[in-house]
Amino acid sequence: MANTPLDKRSAAPADRIAAQLAFLTEACKLKSVLRATTLCDGSRRENSGEHSWHIALYALVLGDQAQADVNIDRVIRMLLIHDLVEIDAGDMPVHGTHDAAAQAQIEQIAARRIFGLLPPDQAQDFRALWDEFEAAETPDAIFAKSIDRVQPVIANLETGGGTWPAYGVTAAQLETRVGAKVARGAPALWSALKHRIDAWFAARASSLE
Amino acid sequence: MANTPLDKRSAAPADRIAAQLAFLTEACKLKSVLRATTLCDGSRRENSGEHSWHIALYALVLGDQAQADVNIDRVIRMLLIHDLVEIDAGDMPVHGTHDAAAQAQIEQIAARRIFGLLPPDQAQDFRALWDEFEAAETPDAIFAKSIDRVQPVIANLETGGGTWPAYGVTAAQLETRVGAKVARGAPALWSALKHRIDAWFAARASSLE
Repeated sequence: MANTPLDKRSAAPADRIAAQLAFLTEACKLKSVLRATTLCDGSRRENSGEHSWHIALYALVLGDQAQADVNIDRVIRMLLIHDLVEIDAGDMPVHGTHDAAAQAQIEQIAARRIFGLLPPDQAQDFRALWDEFEAAETPDAIFAKSIDRVQPVIANLETGGGTWPAYGVTAAQLETRVGAKVARGAPALWSALKHRIDAWFAARASSLE
Repeated sequence: MANTPLDKRSAAPADRIAAQLAFLTEACKLKSVLRATTLCDGSRRENSGEHSWHIALYALVLGDQAQADVNIDRVIRMLLIHDLVEIDAGDMPVHGTHDAAAQAQIEQIAARRIFGLLPPDQAQDFRALWDEFEAAETPDAIFAKSIDRVQPVIANLETGGGTWPAYGVTAAQLETRVGAKVARGAPALWSALKHRIDAWFAARASSLE
């Protein structure tokens, strides 16, 4: 992907750099895509650019929670590009109601346009990496998806439940929509969080009685 | 760094995960540290969290502009953690006036506290990587510094000069403070930008005549 062999690069170096910079300037727009989740201090909603940084850091720190066959550097590369399609397609909250098939189609068109700004060899490599992430079948993609799901849970726990009450999320929904995916890639991590999640729902239940 | 061998890990896995998550929650504060530079559309000032994502992506895309002995994955790891000290020390604009030695001391104390939240083996590894970045002597660190310097230049070019007029930056200052560092790690990249920078200063000079 990086350090592309010379023979795979386009002929004119100046054109290549121009295409790379055009892609990077377009990517800047991800900082203006807002997510449902807030910062850990609850001060404002998080954007998808800073979210992408945070979960790449999650992967670096929590890499020892992954299975032995996971390549953390590939996971980080995936996480750096995983949300770029949101520049065109927007962010869909995991607990929101939306047409998943229609959204997937919009994201496919977005991927073609955005990765298509890169020089052809890189466009192909980045697209393949994003497709691998989306398919969530390889060990690297499974771990990347775990990390992507776990960060909002922690943001919500840090802000007294965060967006869970607004979306009417139940412990059972959290287990199905989030827990199963986190546990698939990082079981010990989900166990550690499960204690905190159960405590939050138990406290909320008694406060509502 | 990630995938730490078992014998280097602390005894209790739950304590280890708790320390890792405490570090990651603390890291969230980097999203509230504002930089002098704006987003590429000029709509607001950029924060150091989203900046860290953007330059990690820069490294991934522009990796083929690096010397052959540069390991892009190590560069990306460096860039993901390079600004964490700003949580305590704040961001110092490259064109601002501040006491560099005093700032360096504050950053040393910040590094001890923030990386010290991690399990001991990771605290040591992350600190060593940050020290390497700061020293800017190895090929990986030299390229990482180039990338860190080049992104604000592009943000300024995209926003009609951005913060250059406010800081009274001249073409000569840009060449000394930024150009020399970018060219050290990525000469072709600086050449490509030099054309656009010269055009901007030439246009500004005629508009002020």
